[in-house]
Amino acid sequence: MKRFIDLADFEPAAVRDLIALAQKLEREPEPQALAGKVLGLLFMNPSLRTLASFQAGMARLGGSSFVITPGQGTWNLESRQGVMMDGDRAEHVREGIPVLASYSDALGIRSFAEGKDLNADLAETGFRAMAELVDKPLINMESAMNHPCQALADWKTMDELGVPDHGKFVLSWVYHPRALPLAVPAAAMTMAAQRGMEVVVLRPEGYEVPAPLADKTRALAKTSGGSFTETSDRASALKGARVLYAKEWGSTRHYGDARAEAELRKPLSEWRVEEPWFQSADPRCHFMHCLPVRRNVAVADALLDGPRSVVVREAYNRMPAQMAVLHRMLAR
Amino acid sequence: MKRFIDLADFEPAAVRDLIALAQKLEREPEPQALAGKVLGLLFMNPSLRTLASFQAGMARLGGSSFVITPGQGTWNLESRQGVMMDGDRAEHVREGIPVLASYSDALGIRSFAEGKDLNADLAETGFRAMAELVDKPLINMESAMNHPCQALADWKTMDELGVPDHGKFVLSWVYHPRALPLAVPAAAMTMAAQRGMEVVVLRPEGYEVPAPLADKTRALAKTSGGSFTETSDRASALKGARVLYAKEWGSTRHYGDARAEAELRKPLSEWRVEEPWFQSADPRCHFMHCLPVRRNVAVADALLDGPRSVVVREAYNRMPAQMAVLHRMLAR
Amino acid sequence: MKRFIDLADFEPAAVRDLIALAQKLEREPEPQALAGKVLGLLFMNPSLRTLASFQAGMARLGGSSFVITPGQGTWNLESRQGVMMDGDRAEHVREGIPVLASYSDALGIRSFAEGKDLNADLAETGFRAMAELVDKPLINMESAMNHPCQALADWKTMDELGVPDHGKFVLSWVYHPRALPLAVPAAAMTMAAQRGMEVVVLRPEGYEVPAPLADKTRALAKTSGGSFTETSDRASALKGARVLYAKEWGSTRHYGDARAEAELRKPLSEWRVEEPWFQSADPRCHFMHCLPVRRNVAVADALLDGPRSVVVREAYNRMPAQMAVLHRMLAR
Repeated sequence: MKRFIDLADFEPAAVRDLIALAQKLEREPEPQALAGKVLGLLFMNPSLRTLASFQAGMARLGGSSFVITPGQGTWNLESRQGVMMDGDRAEHVREGIPVLASYSDALGIRSFAEGKDLNADLAETGFRAMAELVDKPLINMESAMNHPCQALADWKTMDELGVPDHGKFVLSWVYHPRALPLAVPAAAMTMAAQRGMEVVVLRPEGYEVPAPLADKTRALAKTSGGSFTETSDRASALKGARVLYAKEWGSTRHYGDARAEAELRKPLSEWRVEEPWFQSADPRCHFMHCLPVRRNVAVADALLDGPRSVVVREAYNRMPAQMAVLHRMLAR
Repeated sequence: MKRFIDLADFEPAAVRDLIALAQKLEREPEPQALAGKVLGLLFMNPSLRTLASFQAGMARLGGSSFVITPGQGTWNLESRQGVMMDGDRAEHVREGIPVLASYSDALGIRSFAEGKDLNADLAETGFRAMAELVDKPLINMESAMNHPCQALADWKTMDELGVPDHGKFVLSWVYHPRALPLAVPAAAMTMAAQRGMEVVVLRPEGYEVPAPLADKTRALAKTSGGSFTETSDRASALKGARVLYAKEWGSTRHYGDARAEAELRKPLSEWRVEEPWFQSADPRCHFMHCLPVRRNVAVADALLDGPRSVVVREAYNRMPAQMAVLHRMLAR
Repeated sequence: MKRFIDLADFEPAAVRDLIALAQKLEREPEPQALAGKVLGLLFMNPSLRTLASFQAGMARLGGSSFVITPGQGTWNLESRQGVMMDGDRAEHVREGIPVLASYSDALGIRSFAEGKDLNADLAETGFRAMAELVDKPLINMESAMNHPCQALADWKTMDELGVPDHGKFVLSWVYHPRALPLAVPAAAMTMAAQRGMEVVVLRPEGYEVPAPLADKTRALAKTSGGSFTETSDRASALKGARVLYAKEWGSTRHYGDARAEAELRKPLSEWRVEEPWFQSADPRCHFMHCLPVRRNVAVADALLDGPRSVVVREAYNRMPAQMAVLHRMLAR
């Protein structure tokens, strides 16, 4: 495997193979598999799970990793093309990224959405420009509109929980004090479609799934025997759901317009997941969230601490899922 | 060993066993003992020795570690229970800590005193709440009122220097521009009591040892054949001392009251250790301090650079002491 | 090898031996050579290449490393002697450095020029004071007036490119919004002289090579059959050049005088390397720069992206060059 950029680049069977490898590495550790190998980790944005799970996972396979966090012990990196660099960014990604790749056997890059132009973010212009500079195996540690490591971990989590391949998967918008990127919702809805699930996106008006993403999700669903719909009707959305996957994201109608977005968001603070949301759901319905989550803002304490929540299991699965990816990329 | 939270949780014989193991690992390195094992390190507060000695120690045993420092490449973590998280803390420890533990074979946590309510800090409410979330071996890397790694290193240092088990151990308050936590003084006085020493705490009025800590120290001393007293009379305190252990701490009379504390502290800048302090001490009396230390504020240059000072040895001993703990926790 | 502080401390034959070892380690990796060894990395100033290449290089030799960055998860360190430490620096290097060295098999230190007193920086008073505190193998990761790791990587890069030992090496000043240290220009000119090259320093008036550095460069050139001259005439400087090595540095005439320096610098923004600079150079002339570089400020985009530029290769060579140094220091 040369690139792990988008889970949709892989056939469902290939994803299932990766999950099987992840499970095998859990049962039969291979502490020498990546001896002498080095994973470079470039974080243009903050992290907790991604940093820790990649470093721990690489170590469990016998390899090593280093972390570069521009703005934290390293100067900020410029990524715009053709600019005169007379501001506060001392180095361009056109040098920085090939150099880090040259020290690495594989490179992971995290670079969030710019949040100004929806089409540019949907086209992954930022991440693509960086990816073109890397001549080593490359892992997307979250880009503008994708988070394949999270998606792989979530798929594995649902397998372990016995969520049927064709079960109902409800991705619900939840409240957050400010607009967040669409990377995780995009990765979650496409992953669930790829898995063959009945995908329903539940969101208030103004937070619609952008057309290119809806088209991609629909196409993946079609291939796998799933479906994709979108609604703002909570009760119908959750009817018979096997999974409620909550996520905060910014308005797609007012993308990049902070004032209009704030106005739209203001009355929506009741979009906080609580137990009554599950009334019409399948009794076994699980609650998923990629974390970090703001307690009692996006989700009630009782739910996170209750039996429906599998958020820590999801986060744990980041490690074995990524170990499978690294093993595929780097083991002999 | 499942938890290394408080040195007083171990019998003196068990502490001596740990020190013997530390010394064995110094003589006979075991660079494969913890191959494939991962230590997670969570620093809610800054560090130099603790970070470096845990990472180096784990590496010397063949294992690996990762570091999470909220506020440095990771968002800040909320630790209050039941709050609506609409401020600047994006993740709760109730998610963050179990997740980090899930990537780790053992977890170290540093979380200083809140410094507001003395009884809450004495009860270790903050650290205990975090510790309850960890289902892996757990190491206290400094909590509100404890620093068992420092205590173990200090005990080992005294052994190496030939300080008798029943020698006189003077813990003296020294000046600092602001109120610091009581973790190290608490750990030092209880450790010395546990070792069977004649423990004297020397401090100005207003900086008394809180009653629960005095009781604990007295009880440990009784079991080990030592003693515990408290005074503000420097000459009598230091008479015959084998160790002068200096430490800065905040007023226990005005705990959490910054203005009253500053007022009380103002005239105390002469509590700076200098050679004349040792006039009545045993000629072999050593000077100890856990570091970091403000030169010429808490201690004079000449003393730190002179033959009495063993501060670098103390700091070095953090590494083998912690290696013994890690070996006990994680080696087969 | 006990210290790698200045490439000029080594005979040219010894430097060539190091490069041969670096090349051998590229062909025949030794992933167990430094098993159980720990490299401490202390960064008083920011880094990207140095951090990543040392961590990756150490890992490729089977060893480990830890990173301490004062101000980033660690308090700031005081380095002035004899001061009363009542400010914001909580620990002195007199404690901090010996402690970090005690955890390490080798220690790397980065400590930039203070930029106030040219003679003090030329005398490396800051780095020397720290180096005296280290009783382990020590690596200079960039001091006030030196950067031997960069110099060794650059020498290796020129060898690989077939730049003749006696070829013409032009070190040119280039524009930067503010005064930068002289560490890299000093390391580059002395390295090229040591290699036996025809060294020409091209710079505007006011940016002259300080006399002690010119003397050192001249002496090294004499021993190796090279030469050293200095000019502000671009065309004559570049005539027949095999290498144009660009670097930003502060005025040596107004060293430490920010206002006078800014005035002198203002009209010099046309000192930006572009293709026409190479008109009279050897057609094979390579463009070198240690990075980070400000695109379109110091160097034009087209040049950095064109075939003359070897900046990424230079940066890559940091890793094998440093691996050779570490191997010499630490392998049995």
